Amino acid sequence: MSLLVQKYGGTSVGTVERIGAVADKVAGFREQGHDMVVVVSAMSGETNRLIALANDIQERPDPREMDVLVSTGEQVTIALLCMALKKRGWDARSYTGGQVRILTDDSHTKARIQEIDEANMRADLDAGRVVVVAGFQGVDAKGNITTLGRGGSDTTGVALAAALKADECQIYTDVDGVYTTDPRVVDRARRLEKITFEEMLEMASLGSKVLQIRAVEFAGKYNVPLRVLSSFKEGPGTLITLDEEENTMEQPVVSGIAFNRDEAKITLAGIPDTPGIASKILAPVGEANVEVDVIVQNVGADNTTDLTFTVNRGDMNKTVELLSAVAKEIGAREVSGDDAIAKVSIVGVGMRSHAGVASTMFKALAEEGINIQMITTSEIKISVIISEKYLELAVRTLHSAFGLDAEVTA
Amino acid sequence: MSLLVQKYGGTSVGTVERIGAVADKVAGFREQGHDMVVVVSAMSGETNRLIALANDIQERPDPREMDVLVSTGEQVTIALLCMALKKRGWDARSYTGGQVRILTDDSHTKARIQEIDEANMRADLDAGRVVVVAGFQGVDAKGNITTLGRGGSDTTGVALAAALKADECQIYTDVDGVYTTDPRVVDRARRLEKITFEEMLEMASLGSKVLQIRAVEFAGKYNVPLRVLSSFKEGPGTLITLDEEENTMEQPVVSGIAFNRDEAKITLAGIPDTPGIASKILAPVGEANVEVDVIVQNVGADNTTDLTFTVNRGDMNKTVELLSAVAKEIGAREVSGDDAIAKVSIVGVGMRSHAGVASTMFKALAEEGINIQMITTSEIKISVIISEKYLELAVRTLHSAFGLDAEVTA
Repeated sequence: MSLLVQKYGGTSVGTVERIGAVADKVAGFREQGHDMVVVVSAMSGETNRLIALANDIQERPDPREMDVLVSTGEQVTIALLCMALKKRGWDARSYTGGQVRILTDDSHTKARIQEIDEANMRADLDAGRVVVVAGFQGVDAKGNITTLGRGGSDTTGVALAAALKADECQIYTDVDGVYTTDPRVVDRARRLEKITFEEMLEMASLGSKVLQIRAVEFAGKYNVPLRVLSSFKEGPGTLITLDEEENTMEQPVVSGIAFNRDEAKITLAGIPDTPGIASKILAPVGEANVEVDVIVQNVGADNTTDLTFTVNRGDMNKTVELLSAVAKEIGAREVSGDDAIAKVSIVGVGMRSHAGVASTMFKALAEEGINIQMITTSEIKISVIISEKYLELAVRTLHSAFGLDAEVTA
Repeated sequence: MSLLVQKYGGTSVGTVERIGAVADKVAGFREQGHDMVVVVSAMSGETNRLIALANDIQERPDPREMDVLVSTGEQVTIALLCMALKKRGWDARSYTGGQVRILTDDSHTKARIQEIDEANMRADLDAGRVVVVAGFQGVDAKGNITTLGRGGSDTTGVALAAALKADECQIYTDVDGVYTTDPRVVDRARRLEKITFEEMLEMASLGSKVLQIRAVEFAGKYNVPLRVLSSFKEGPGTLITLDEEENTMEQPVVSGIAFNRDEAKITLAGIPDTPGIASKILAPVGEANVEVDVIVQNVGADNTTDLTFTVNRGDMNKTVELLSAVAKEIGAREVSGDDAIAKVSIVGVGMRSHAGVASTMFKALAEEGINIQMITTSEIKISVIISEKYLELAVRTLHSAFGLDAEVTA
C-alpha cells in the first residue's frame, strides 16, 4: 500500500477508448490497495485545436486569455476520466488546477508553481477516492488561471508527488522507458532500469524528449522517485532517482549516448585578440534571443583568434547576418555558418570517478575516421561536434565502445 | 452612459468570425460610452459534442463531472471574445462562473444561483474594461463547478444585471424580438415593442422559446428591464418590463397568441364519482414524473364522471399504460389517449380589465367550425384544446380577431 501519483499524456487519453484503458489501469492499482492521484493532459490534438482558434482571432493572443482557453483541454479530460472510473465502480473526484489549489506566479503561459494545497486531495484519498487532477495548470494569487507551458503536466505530476510525499511519481508516455540511446539509430539500444536525475537532465537537454526538463529538475530538487513507463505496453519502465553512493561501484561509466541534429556552427575567423572580444561578439547574439550552446575559442600565432559556437539550426542565418556587422566593427576577417553538423554526447555519473573516459571516446571516433570539430565537457558529460553525415556511425560506435549494446538474443 | 449586460447565445458565437462580429457590436456600445458586461454561451455544437463524449463513457454521466466537462464550453468562448476585443483595442477580462463568483446551490446540472459577488466585475468596469462572463455556470459553497441547466446563460445574464443594477439586460438571439405569434404560422405576425414579464412567462411556457422561463421569472422578481434582440439584424427588439399602471389604458387586450403541439389528451371515462377520485388517478402519474397540464372533470348524470387531462406527447403511451391498472382498481370504464390535439392560448394583461374576451375567442373559433375540447383559464391567459388539424386556422383566426395582424405594406 503506497501513494502513487501517475501522469498520463495526451496520446494516452487521446480517445474515449484510451481514457477507458487508463481507468482500467488506475483501477488495477486501486485494487492492489494503492492510493491514487492521477494527472492528465488534454486529449491529443485538443490543445492545438484551441491554439488555432486563438490564432484565428488574434495574431499574438492575449496571454491571460490564452490560459483561460487552453486550460479547458485538461478540464475535459479530468471529467471524462472520473466518469470512466465511476463506471467501473471506483469513486473519483476531479480537480482543476485552481480547485486543488496549485498556486503559481502570474507569468501567464509559462507560470511556475509556488505552493500546492494538499488538504482537499488528502481528504479525498482518505475517503478512498481516486483524485484526478488537470495537468499543466494552476491559479495565481488573484485567482487568474495560469498554465505552466507545454509539457507542464509532467511538472504538475512531480509537484503533486512532492507535496503529497508520494512513494513514486509515474509518468506514462508512449515510450516504455529511457534508452541508452535512440533505438531508431542503434537497434541494440537498451532500456535503462535506472538513471540518475543528473544524467536524465543531460539526456533530456540533448534531445531525448521523454520527460520535461523542468519536471526532472523538480523531482531532483525534492527527491521524488520518478518512473517513466509506457501507457500501451506492460513493463517496469525506467526509474529516475538520486545517485546513491552505494550504487556507484556497480554503475556503468557511461549510461547513455545522446545526440542533437538541430544545431549549426558559426565561426568568426581572424579576430584581433584583445580582452573582452568574446563578449563583444556574443552579447548581440544573446540580445537577439539566440541561444548559444557550445563555445570554443582558439588563440592563433599571428595575434588573431578564431571563435566558434553553435546555435539552433533555425537561428543560423539570422546570426551570421547579425555578426557580419559586428565583424566589420571589430576588424574580424570573416563570418561563416555551417549547418551540416551534429552533437554527440556521452552521459554518465560514473565518469566522475573514472579517468580515461574522454580518451576512450576520442579514440573510438578516430578509429572510424570521424573528425572532431569541437569538444565540450561537464562533470558527467562529454560532447563533441562532428560532421552530420557521421552522426549514426558515431552514436553506434560509442554505444559499443562503452559497453551499452544489448545482448543479441537469437 | 449606462451599464448594459448583454448575452449572446451559441449561434451568435458559433464561429471565430461571429465572435468577431460580437466584439464589433460590443465595441460599438463601449464607443458610445456604455459600461459593458457580456455573457456568452458555448459555441454552437460544442455543448452537444461534450455531452456525446460523456455518454460514450458513462450511460448516466456523473452529474458533478458533467458540470466540470460542459462548463469548458463557455470558458472557451469568454477567452476568444476577450481576445477579439483586445485585438480591436478594447481592454477586456474574462470570468468563469467561479471567478465572478456566482454562488449556487449544489444541485449539479440544474443549480440555482444564490448570490453574486460583484466586486471583481465592478473593479474592472471602473477601470474601463469590458467584463466577459461565462454563462450557464457557477460554483457551490465548496468550490465545485455547477451548471444552471440548458439555456442557463439567459439566467446568468439577468442575475448579473440584477446584481450590478444594470440599466438593461439585452438578450441577443437569432430572432429579432417577441412576436404576436409564430411568423411561420401567421405571416402577418408582428414584433411586439413591449410585453410584460407575466405575458412573456405565459408565452414562453406555451412554447415560444425565445427566452428561458427562469430568466424571465428572475427578471420579473428583480425588475430587470429585459430586451430580446437579434445578433444578426439591427433593430430595437422587444422590451420586457413590469406592467406599469399608466400604460394599461393603451395596452391591447391580447398581446399574443401562443400554441403548443406537443401535448396529448388522456381520458378516463365512467369513473365512480367518489370524493378524492381525481387524486387517486393523478398521484401515480406525478410519481411517474409525467407532467400534467390542463385538467378537466365533468360530473355525469349516472353517478359516474369523466376525467380528462393533457400530458407531453411523448408521455402518452406510458401514462395510458400506467392508468389501465388504476382504472381497473377504481372501477373506471375505460382509459384512452389522443395525441392529435393542440393547445392554443391568447395571452394579455389587458384581459384582466376587459370582460368578454373569452366569448370573443370562442365565437371566433366557432365561426370557423373549430370544436373546443377543453378550456382552461388564468388571469391573463385563456387556453383551449382543439383538434391538431385546426391549429393553424385557429391561430390565424384569433390573431385577426384580437387585432394583432400587421398592416399590409404593399
